[in-house]
Amino acid sequence: MARPTPLSGFPEWLPAGRLVEQHVLDSLRRTFELHGFVGIETRAVEPLEQLLRKGETSKEVYVLRRLQEDDAEGADGADRQGQLGLHFDLTVPFARYVLENAGHLAFPFKRYQIQKVWRGERPQDGRFREFVQADIDVVGVGELPYHYEVELPLVIAEALGSLTDLGMPEVRILVNNRKVAEGFYRGLGLDDVDGVLRSIDKLDKIGPDAVAALLVAESGATEKQAAACLELAGISGDDAGVVERVRQLAADHGVVSDLLETGCDELGALVTAAAERAPGVVVADLKIARGLDYYTGSVYETVLVGHEQLGSICSGGRYDTLASDGVHTYPGVGLSIGVSRLVSRLLGAELVRATRAVPSAVVVAVTSEETRAASDRAAAALRARGIPVEVAPTAAKFGKQIKYADRRGVPFVWFPGRPAGVAEDGSPVEAVADQVKDIRSGEQVEADAASWEPPAEDLWPRAEAV
Amino acid sequence: MARPTPLSGFPEWLPAGRLVEQHVLDSLRRTFELHGFVGIETRAVEPLEQLLRKGETSKEVYVLRRLQEDDAEGADGADRQGQLGLHFDLTVPFARYVLENAGHLAFPFKRYQIQKVWRGERPQDGRFREFVQADIDVVGVGELPYHYEVELPLVIAEALGSLTDLGMPEVRILVNNRKVAEGFYRGLGLDDVDGVLRSIDKLDKIGPDAVAALLVAESGATEKQAAACLELAGISGDDAGVVERVRQLAADHGVVSDLLETGCDELGALVTAAAERAPGVVVADLKIARGLDYYTGSVYETVLVGHEQLGSICSGGRYDTLASDGVHTYPGVGLSIGVSRLVSRLLGAELVRATRAVPSAVVVAVTSEETRAASDRAAAALRARGIPVEVAPTAAKFGKQIKYADRRGVPFVWFPGRPAGVAEDGSPVEAVADQVKDIRSGEQVEADAASWEPPAEDLWPRAEAV
Repeated sequence: MARPTPLSGFPEWLPAGRLVEQHVLDSLRRTFELHGFVGIETRAVEPLEQLLRKGETSKEVYVLRRLQEDDAEGADGADRQGQLGLHFDLTVPFARYVLENAGHLAFPFKRYQIQKVWRGERPQDGRFREFVQADIDVVGVGELPYHYEVELPLVIAEALGSLTDLGMPEVRILVNNRKVAEGFYRGLGLDDVDGVLRSIDKLDKIGPDAVAALLVAESGATEKQAAACLELAGISGDDAGVVERVRQLAADHGVVSDLLETGCDELGALVTAAAERAPGVVVADLKIARGLDYYTGSVYETVLVGHEQLGSICSGGRYDTLASDGVHTYPGVGLSIGVSRLVSRLLGAELVRATRAVPSAVVVAVTSEETRAASDRAAAALRARGIPVEVAPTAAKFGKQIKYADRRGVPFVWFPGRPAGVAEDGSPVEAVADQVKDIRSGEQVEADAASWEPPAEDLWPRAEAV
Repeated sequence: MARPTPLSGFPEWLPAGRLVEQHVLDSLRRTFELHGFVGIETRAVEPLEQLLRKGETSKEVYVLRRLQEDDAEGADGADRQGQLGLHFDLTVPFARYVLENAGHLAFPFKRYQIQKVWRGERPQDGRFREFVQADIDVVGVGELPYHYEVELPLVIAEALGSLTDLGMPEVRILVNNRKVAEGFYRGLGLDDVDGVLRSIDKLDKIGPDAVAALLVAESGATEKQAAACLELAGISGDDAGVVERVRQLAADHGVVSDLLETGCDELGALVTAAAERAPGVVVADLKIARGLDYYTGSVYETVLVGHEQLGSICSGGRYDTLASDGVHTYPGVGLSIGVSRLVSRLLGAELVRATRAVPSAVVVAVTSEETRAASDRAAAALRARGIPVEVAPTAAKFGKQIKYADRRGVPFVWFPGRPAGVAEDGSPVEAVADQVKDIRSGEQVEADAASWEPPAEDLWPRAEAV
């Protein structure tokens, strides 16, 4: 087999990179669990007809076929009945899981879910076709209090904030409220709310003039209405003053709307709570639209400060109908972190590195293959106290064994001693104590495997800022 | 959307079941890392032609197709060039990863890998079509010392042993050595070694008479040769005596073989080391054949004591050629734990349960929506010291909020007090301290969110023996 080459769009990390990713995943999981979110996993596949309910994503689905499938099982591509596809997000599977298990879940149900998703993008687009998402959602039955729309971005702020000491840039969570936008547009006389949102969503890409033209051409806006929409989109800020500016703008344009009022109250509550609990992290930004039409309240996007061109690394919002079984409706609010995109940037821009490429804090040297069992015993004694240890692969010269540790970034080499005994010629052999060498400083001291501890910062490998 | 039904072969757990699975995965990972294995993840897909190199598994492969694939991309099922399939094990992807990244890896390379795999089994077989495997392998360049064949089953013994205090039955790791079998068969005059192994592999299923008939019919054995093969398969034991019995049997049949001798030395070394380091766990069992023809030394299977009919939950062996790029050959030894099969049995037989269904140790009650911020502050103070906490969803009557905690198995409810102040009529209001209630005992005491700790066993949910 010739040396294989990577598959475009399917990222894989070398061990040190995976260690960084694992550190990120462990940190996220810990924050989610500290906030009471329960972890679930769903299967990788869903029935194709479920995946195709969101029309705009249909072209991204990978469909599965058993290689030796019977004709009767529906190998015919035209027959979608019973066909399976890989999930392209964690929201569709979560909605299905909630419906399927509603009788066994306690609501409001707070879950996190960290899994791979797949998107059959065109290969030439250079996008990820397989990537890890970390989602949190809260879902209720029939109703879900507004305060969860405040809580969830604050949990994300804490989760992503826990990564800053390993070199992750600061984040800004940009928030808006659909009710504000919809109330304002309708109050202006524009009823094609989805169309206006889709145009506003393009603001960063195509600029205000082109958006204004789109609003006129596609949503029937007058130039004055288009200008008002752009004025609203220009408002941002991280204190309650931002809501006052929205109210003033509405008054200037004669907009009177209960929906707008509700939205302003909600957005104001979010900004106020965030200013206390995560100062400077959450910013109201009235141009955040989120293209998807199922959001009904708060919407969120998240940028890395200094890496804004990367786009949003964590998005989401409030939806009144995550799922419905005809009897009950399940409203929810959730956010999704694009972990692969984030880790890819942290590694690619060399912002973060692993302190070493293997878990081991110690390599136990082997004096001779005949005494390997003594090295194994020293290793076991260290492991029994939670110290990650490996034993050298061969009884090479100690210099070579030290190089083995050095190549992996392992900080300590352990040299097993020997018990007192009697040599072949009958003369007494004195006991030799175990020794441990810090190969960075060269310092070597006597040590006991039953009590020695490495410094806490050397115990496990970590991700750290470069 | 009507209530969806589960997909046969794609297991999913409710939150409490996932918690048990997560506990198992965390325990395995910790043991692997304590032994210096580095975690990697590979993409879920491999080129179809790679997946089909192991002929016998071809019918199990799921092939991927982009729903809106261009004809030019090879939608034609007959054209396998460039087609992708889901991996059906972690060995094929690991071999590819080693070849692809050999220049960046330090050998011997010890890795663990915990991921889902997919097998397109016939739906009516009732087998898992998606399941989690946890693999460990050590791979060298050109050579790999025998002692890793001793180390790896002992790591597995420790990993699975770490699960016994949560109700997992004891395990027996059954070991054999291909060199013993091959040396013995060839010494008897039977050269169809793979055929004999395949027949012996069926011993538990079809019994000794049928195996003897197979050996005669398919491998050209005489009845005497067949009987000798069955005698060898009948030998088992957990001390070095087992190797003596093999040597005696060989002598009885006039078998002289260097390969057999090497195999006996290796098997003896493994059993002796295991008797010291994991007494009673590793058993030499000469009927263990492992159907796959790429094993060249030790082979392993693992049964749960009392649940033997479940089959092997962890199998593997030594292979001289995990991968080869024409210049270098990469020998290895590895084992693979069938995590889903194991967890499914632990849950299905009600051997294990989660102590609660959510991470939270504490629900902070909310006195009124106006004072929710006080509850949020108490929760944040507890979380800052690593205590998992959620805040009640509504300011319902306290009895209802206690029920909310009880339904989730959360042991503590926290009642925020209030600072001293002045009432509307100008009279002084005394400060009220926070209180915490253990809802199992009903005991309620004053507490300070800056210092209170739950008992260690209540801090996080755990999996425990039923």
